[in-house]
Amino acid sequence: MIINHNFYMKLALDEAWKYQGFTYPNPAVGCAILSPSREILAVEAHHRSGEAHAEVNALKSAYYKLTNDAYILSLETSADIHAYLINNHNNMFNNCSLYTTLEPCSHYGKTPSCASLISELSFKDVYVGSYDTNKKAQNGNTILQKNGVKVVSEILHNECENLLFPFKKFLEGRFVFFKWAQRLNATTDDGIISSHESRVDVHKMRDVCDLLVIGGNSVRVDRPTLDARLVDGKAPDILIISRDKEFDRNIPLFNVKNRKVFVEDNFSKLSEYKNIMIEGTSKMYELSREYVDLYLCYLAPTFGGSSGFDNINDKFDILNVRQADEDIIMWMKRI
Amino acid sequence: MIINHNFYMKLALDEAWKYQGFTYPNPAVGCAILSPSREILAVEAHHRSGEAHAEVNALKSAYYKLTNDAYILSLETSADIHAYLINNHNNMFNNCSLYTTLEPCSHYGKTPSCASLISELSFKDVYVGSYDTNKKAQNGNTILQKNGVKVVSEILHNECENLLFPFKKFLEGRFVFFKWAQRLNATTDDGIISSHESRVDVHKMRDVCDLLVIGGNSVRVDRPTLDARLVDGKAPDILIISRDKEFDRNIPLFNVKNRKVFVEDNFSKLSEYKNIMIEGTSKMYELSREYVDLYLCYLAPTFGGSSGFDNINDKFDILNVRQADEDIIMWMKRI
Repeated sequence: MIINHNFYMKLALDEAWKYQGFTYPNPAVGCAILSPSREILAVEAHHRSGEAHAEVNALKSAYYKLTNDAYILSLETSADIHAYLINNHNNMFNNCSLYTTLEPCSHYGKTPSCASLISELSFKDVYVGSYDTNKKAQNGNTILQKNGVKVVSEILHNECENLLFPFKKFLEGRFVFFKWAQRLNATTDDGIISSHESRVDVHKMRDVCDLLVIGGNSVRVDRPTLDARLVDGKAPDILIISRDKEFDRNIPLFNVKNRKVFVEDNFSKLSEYKNIMIEGTSKMYELSREYVDLYLCYLAPTFGGSSGFDNINDKFDILNVRQADEDIIMWMKRI
Repeated sequence: MIINHNFYMKLALDEAWKYQGFTYPNPAVGCAILSPSREILAVEAHHRSGEAHAEVNALKSAYYKLTNDAYILSLETSADIHAYLINNHNNMFNNCSLYTTLEPCSHYGKTPSCASLISELSFKDVYVGSYDTNKKAQNGNTILQKNGVKVVSEILHNECENLLFPFKKFLEGRFVFFKWAQRLNATTDDGIISSHESRVDVHKMRDVCDLLVIGGNSVRVDRPTLDARLVDGKAPDILIISRDKEFDRNIPLFNVKNRKVFVEDNFSKLSEYKNIMIEGTSKMYELSREYVDLYLCYLAPTFGGSSGFDNINDKFDILNVRQADEDIIMWMKRI
């Protein structure tokens, strides 16, 4: 294995993919920090909008590794971590290196920007995957360079662009992903398929989704709630795709507070939302094909069930695959 | 992400799994080397029996990283690398750390043992996953300790035991694995499923298998060669499971030199072999169920085809999953 810039960027990328789908309306971002002697001090990611950026999370971990000062672990907000680092860094990051999948932000909001923080901590060099094209946050590279930090761009650029793809679609108007769970033999019926961890994952995504799309038949058969109770999250609005508009209104999804439920025979409601998850199997896959930007498959390593995907012809690029608990999670783009 | 001993051992483990199935009759082993200041100098694996052990491959890479002396890259045999390191190490490995999934060998064969080499290079500490229970090679930990190297055992012990499982089965008598290729929708028909890289993988495994088992129907329909031509390897003996003993002898597999072909209606031939690959789909999966130690699935990220796995109920632990070229490769144990 070659241990080079790509290796460290890949660590940052893999960490970031663990949070893909949870960070909306922010992008998924990963960051690795290396000491001047090239020890890995931290590999962290952005977890959720409103929480610290990947760089700040990595600085927090690296600071703890270098000092064993557990106080920093008790700090939750970006502003608190930022202030603590500025007051206590003691030049420990002088000549360190930082790898980030996305150009550090230049945005001065509740805290100064990541680019200014990295500059102030006297990093030697920053390796960047993708450029930030979001007007509010771009020019981080320029700030770093003005402050004497060497910037090397486009490390694993394609892979970092793949990570950023959902965010870029959101900036263009909306991001739509199709999520399904299946067994190894492609069945999707006969009870719970995914591990608990996978289901928690899905609830984290529902929590930040605007709209969840589902087929009428699934609603009638499964009688689902489709909320984010496993993470105490908010329930997204629901679009049920069905020609038959009649539903038993005792089905739990109709009785979740602060949620709109639409029953339509088409997808035009999608134009009113920005981050949309479609949950389904074979039939919904075909119906929604033209609207979907990415596919997310939870694959359980089991054989069982009796019906599921069939009669479809498609090919995907796997953007990321990882094992989580018992299952395999794959983000894919149709090609 | 926590950067600790487990992190470095996991790097060694993941590298080793890339060569699982190719190293017979040796175990798959991975190794990482860190500088005294904790820079990752190398992560390498054992590739093939007769070639350098994982530790020697990692020392070769680390030496090159530290010296830029490309001469060592031209050395192929373990003996040559070993001798070159002994003559040229210049104490550069003093106080380095080494992570190895398996206790370093103590066997003095064509070269001195890995344990003695690591000792002679004055490593500070060695982190070991599994103990070597092979009588010829064990006691590496003792050699290291006698030479003043600190040894910490059982780092990610379960994961390292999983990596070693095929080798342990082989030592007990024989190792049998069931390999199949499928699409996302579990189909196995309708032409080539796997990427070129996946097929090269399979040929590397056939090259070191004693016996390849296949169903009579597959032979009649696919008319395969079942050799290791993609890697210029040797063709394994073939056991065709079929009640009907009549075959068109022009089917290529019957005309490969230096190979025995058996046609039987049972699996008793397995007792005469040590490293056995079964290739098949649904029917062979069920027939061979009681003989199989591990399952190897090449999953192509495509929908297509029309028939494949069905009517099976089983559950697996995923021992390793990785993306290779276009496909996903999973090693699994039935639970």
